Amino acid sequence: MTVIVIAGGSQPEIVEFVNLAKNFYGEQLQFVVFDKADNIDPNHFWTYYHCANDQEVAQQAVNYVATGSGQVLMKGLIQSHILLKALVQDKFDLKKQTLLSHIALIKLPQAANRSFLLTDGAMNIAPTTTTMIEIVDNVLVVAHKLGIVQPKIALISSAENFNPKMPSSVLAKEVAKHFQDQTTGLVFGPLSLDLALSPQAVQRKHYHGPIMGDADVIVVPNIDTGNVLYKAFALFAGAQVGGMITGAKVPVILTSRSDTAQSKFYSLQLALRQLDTEV
Amino acid sequence: MTVIVIAGGSQPEIVEFVNLAKNFYGEQLQFVVFDKADNIDPNHFWTYYHCANDQEVAQQAVNYVATGSGQVLMKGLIQSHILLKALVQDKFDLKKQTLLSHIALIKLPQAANRSFLLTDGAMNIAPTTTTMIEIVDNVLVVAHKLGIVQPKIALISSAENFNPKMPSSVLAKEVAKHFQDQTTGLVFGPLSLDLALSPQAVQRKHYHGPIMGDADVIVVPNIDTGNVLYKAFALFAGAQVGGMITGAKVPVILTSRSDTAQSKFYSLQLALRQLDTEV
Repeated sequence: MTVIVIAGGSQPEIVEFVNLAKNFYGEQLQFVVFDKADNIDPNHFWTYYHCANDQEVAQQAVNYVATGSGQVLMKGLIQSHILLKALVQDKFDLKKQTLLSHIALIKLPQAANRSFLLTDGAMNIAPTTTTMIEIVDNVLVVAHKLGIVQPKIALISSAENFNPKMPSSVLAKEVAKHFQDQTTGLVFGPLSLDLALSPQAVQRKHYHGPIMGDADVIVVPNIDTGNVLYKAFALFAGAQVGGMITGAKVPVILTSRSDTAQSKFYSLQLALRQLDTEV
Repeated sequence: MTVIVIAGGSQPEIVEFVNLAKNFYGEQLQFVVFDKADNIDPNHFWTYYHCANDQEVAQQAVNYVATGSGQVLMKGLIQSHILLKALVQDKFDLKKQTLLSHIALIKLPQAANRSFLLTDGAMNIAPTTTTMIEIVDNVLVVAHKLGIVQPKIALISSAENFNPKMPSSVLAKEVAKHFQDQTTGLVFGPLSLDLALSPQAVQRKHYHGPIMGDADVIVVPNIDTGNVLYKAFALFAGAQVGGMITGAKVPVILTSRSDTAQSKFYSLQLALRQLDTEV
């Protein structure tokens, strides 16, 4: 039995999402919802706790997973920063890694339905070398949990040539150097997006390297790059997208207002695959 | 009669591209090719000039447009920086605006075949407020030449809320402020990509603003954001993409090795629409 704790969940979008999840996982999942609004669960899908305001919603939801009663935390329709502020409070002792980072799972129909991870398009604004090393550490854990033994991790810049005038190129080179003797993953960069994800582009450019259109992970140099990429894939490339925050002791699903119920469901699947128990 | 000058053009890819252009425009276009390799033109498509090396290719090609013998400059398979170095030399007097910037034209089948411009994913690495104002000035000229009287210009950040901690958000706010009384275009930001380009996302987020999924121009906060976006649209969203450098007295087509002949042709169409004479 796995318990999903939703902070701010008494909304039609969440009912639709829980419906999808219940249909797929049946009684393997239980849902606990904290909200300041009235309980709108029509079918006794979830256990409901009423709170006075968004701050209490966040505190109660985080406390529920911190005490071990829930295994996955999910943001409903409260604001991200309110939930994240509660999540990192010392009293809950929920931080596992030094850094929290966002990881998206993207399945592209155009690339033979291949899936890859994208990080970080939602949490860390302008990573330094140290921050990006931690972002890679976090995504290595997630990739391994997904069963990718030695993930190919592409550090994205605008081109594959090292360019000292291009900050993303310098960042990629430094981070790749840090991981050069790592055997749990292949960390390579700078690399452009086409060479990281498209075997056709690799062929057209006659490119040879350790990653040739077959990256398992895309690491972007800044939040704006990841954010537009996530949105372009989701809105214009027909991709299945899900996302979560990693680095805490429980996976945290951070849905956006513009995510569909289906996309929330993919996020749940990604989060469940991070747990040690099979769901 | 319009003359297209190609620097480094004696390659099969360029023959294929010139074929496409000749089929479409017939005798309205003439091509002049500078190269250090042998002339491979099989059908007397172009006038050919042999050069000693890439530097001479660049000098001769730029000189040809500077003296008024050619109306469009196109990079073939020489390196961009060699051509650009020649282009900005004072002796040629080819700079019109203070800044050269890259502009792509993107037609997305998913968005009812709507076209929009994307700038700058290829030239300016990390624009300051001043640089981004010049990027917007350049794209205003191009949009007007395309017949868009008052283009809706979205300054992209990761979200539509102003966030002082997010450099792209601060940049967008400052640039939008600079253009607030401008009547030749509507310059607005910060705005997220989904709200700039997708009416469906606007609807789902209940968003209201001067741009609601109907942007004519996407201005990105840094080169990496524009570069991945261009590549994602071209490779995974089935978009038609073309691109050029603006700010010089002649349009400059800067093709990439991974561009198809078709994409080079779209770039030519975009460039031709910048000329005062009809082609």
